[in-house]
Amino acid sequence: MDVKENMEKIAREAREAAFHLAAVSTELKNKALLAMADALLKEQKDILKENEKDMAAARKSGMSQAMLDRLLLTDSRIEGMADGLRQVAALPDPVGEVLSGRQVPNGLKINKMRVPLGVIGIIYEARPNVTADAAGLCLKAGNAVILRGGSEAIKSNMAIAKALYKAGDAAGLPKNSIKLVETTDRQAVDVLLRLNGLVDVIIPRGGAGLIKKVVENSSVPVIETGLGVCHTFVDESANLTMAADIAFNAKVSRPAVCNAMETLLVHEKVAGDFLPGILKRLTEASVEIFGCPGVCAICGEAKTATEEDWFAEYADLKLAVKIVASLPEALAHIEKYGSKHSEAIVTENYSNAQVFLQKVDAAAVYVNASTRFTDGFEFGFGAEIGISTQKLHARGPMGLAELTSTKYVIMGNGQIR
Amino acid sequence: MDVKENMEKIAREAREAAFHLAAVSTELKNKALLAMADALLKEQKDILKENEKDMAAARKSGMSQAMLDRLLLTDSRIEGMADGLRQVAALPDPVGEVLSGRQVPNGLKINKMRVPLGVIGIIYEARPNVTADAAGLCLKAGNAVILRGGSEAIKSNMAIAKALYKAGDAAGLPKNSIKLVETTDRQAVDVLLRLNGLVDVIIPRGGAGLIKKVVENSSVPVIETGLGVCHTFVDESANLTMAADIAFNAKVSRPAVCNAMETLLVHEKVAGDFLPGILKRLTEASVEIFGCPGVCAICGEAKTATEEDWFAEYADLKLAVKIVASLPEALAHIEKYGSKHSEAIVTENYSNAQVFLQKVDAAAVYVNASTRFTDGFEFGFGAEIGISTQKLHARGPMGLAELTSTKYVIMGNGQIR
Repeated sequence: MDVKENMEKIAREAREAAFHLAAVSTELKNKALLAMADALLKEQKDILKENEKDMAAARKSGMSQAMLDRLLLTDSRIEGMADGLRQVAALPDPVGEVLSGRQVPNGLKINKMRVPLGVIGIIYEARPNVTADAAGLCLKAGNAVILRGGSEAIKSNMAIAKALYKAGDAAGLPKNSIKLVETTDRQAVDVLLRLNGLVDVIIPRGGAGLIKKVVENSSVPVIETGLGVCHTFVDESANLTMAADIAFNAKVSRPAVCNAMETLLVHEKVAGDFLPGILKRLTEASVEIFGCPGVCAICGEAKTATEEDWFAEYADLKLAVKIVASLPEALAHIEKYGSKHSEAIVTENYSNAQVFLQKVDAAAVYVNASTRFTDGFEFGFGAEIGISTQKLHARGPMGLAELTSTKYVIMGNGQIR
Repeated sequence: MDVKENMEKIAREAREAAFHLAAVSTELKNKALLAMADALLKEQKDILKENEKDMAAARKSGMSQAMLDRLLLTDSRIEGMADGLRQVAALPDPVGEVLSGRQVPNGLKINKMRVPLGVIGIIYEARPNVTADAAGLCLKAGNAVILRGGSEAIKSNMAIAKALYKAGDAAGLPKNSIKLVETTDRQAVDVLLRLNGLVDVIIPRGGAGLIKKVVENSSVPVIETGLGVCHTFVDESANLTMAADIAFNAKVSRPAVCNAMETLLVHEKVAGDFLPGILKRLTEASVEIFGCPGVCAICGEAKTATEEDWFAEYADLKLAVKIVASLPEALAHIEKYGSKHSEAIVTENYSNAQVFLQKVDAAAVYVNASTRFTDGFEFGFGAEIGISTQKLHARGPMGLAELTSTKYVIMGNGQIR
């Protein structure tokens, strides 16, 4: 069987599973999730052994230390995966929720009800924990899932999937509810992205290159996640102590994540009071500064920012800093260079806060808080499959509800038109 | 300027307009919509003159009568377009609605608010009325719109757009809120479909060929509309008089639309009682029948259905009819051949109704009513931009709310993480 036939077979099997999964009870789904958590712990040794083979091959191929760390599984990481599945089991089932209902004049009762999306394709990199996390979330929302992870993690993923399959079958889940793509042939992704009619949505999870490839090549609808070029604007009326704490937190607390600040914008009227202190604090925390000329004049360690710096998602201890003359200039900068992820203003001025909230086009817009809060757990969703940066379907952190669609359920008594 | 540069310029201008439109008041949008309605009537003669040129060219090129009828504008059709804009002005503004809100433990107030999608590209065929209808709906939801109509209607569309532009400018709308693509070069569509970052969503409106082309080639997110292979299943417990009225209505009332029935499924236990009467009634109404062997045995005029007939969206006075042995067989048939648009069961059995509602995966699922009700006006939305047959973002009839996205608006007092 060639790659195309194989992928179509996987998708047809997942489609069949999805048909049955849509009607599976919450109880059964939860039972399966808990059984999967147990199975991961039971198979822990096998999973670690297979992961060690992936790690050995990756080391030999010269994989970077950061990527090796993502690939590595440990006892505590496997326990974390099992805990994640247990947490998902404890969340309310989104399927069946009636979002709205009405009786129209002719007597038809029209209810809009949450239903599973159907078959979800997850394309990710060499992070084996995604295999369990994504499978658990998709399953709880009643979806069949096709998992395509990075080839460097294939042995780890197969060991994890084997544990999940066995537990799912024993619990009585529809067969093929979870399907790991076992070939590492790159063509498999190309095929998956064109399986309209069999696959309902593709969610890429990974770096900018992966996401771009998926967006540009998929005819199946995609939920774009990821890229965050987040700004914090310190307005002239800001409480400067609060502004410094927010800016420091937004950059330093976890610089590699998508909700970290990448550019700090400062109103010129407070630049002299605000910048020397915060820039000292940042550089002492090893943050490299790329500034406009005004910033460079204040901070001797700053390098001159280029056009690329304003567009950059450093995902690192690096920060672009710019002095702006006004709120409108800050808004225009964000409109031009932002990625519509998370944007914050620090201000004590009511009108400026309102203008910022309205005018900034982003998934999450903050007044007087760190952009680091854009996260499914912080938002109270109890889970997160990713953060959508597109405007269709889901925007911002995506929990279980974002893994569902709706259908209109209509009850009549003979109405014709 | 080549086509690519020209389309990018149009999209950049629309993007700039969208930035301003997001903050425009409902009052101003309504004022502009009413002014546009007036302008269409004021420019009626010019529009009809330009339409006559399109009609003459289309007749010369041998366009079919059905397509000529879609292209034709008349006094009453222009009045219809103006009325449509007035109706949209009278609808509530979806922008700014708070869909949910909570205060999380750290004190952050997180509200999920409706906002415009941004820039919407509408790709349609030679129906000049879409130019005004789509522009009005997009505008009311705060979106800039790029309109790309069929080349056969270009003169009509330009005349309509000219009236809309003038009225919008006079009312004080942001410049470039509505942009008609004036080139008829086919490359313009290819470029439009790849303008990620400038265009937020593409909505194709037209036949299967147009929709397929857009879905397969667009890297911009698409809302798929249209194709309807709708079934009516007459269960063994059905009230057969009701079933006959529903089936007749679903096929005959308007066979060319996507919510019309294409296949009638009948439980074998009532086939003998039900089919002779309804098939006579349908054939007397000029409906051509394509049946399974059992149906052909009952109805001498029926032709034998092929595999293609079960997949067919006839959009015409044609109907596929099949006798099935059970509800599960009906469900399996719908799962295999349906297009997930609108599906109906006629039954008096409570459990069968519940199973059908749950198991059928479609935008609208009916008990004891005609599939013809899947329509934004019938659903009480007051407007319709199309009927989505995909599962992301919007499913079923799309009104103004479906032309919006959301953003999280978050108010803090110094929270850091």
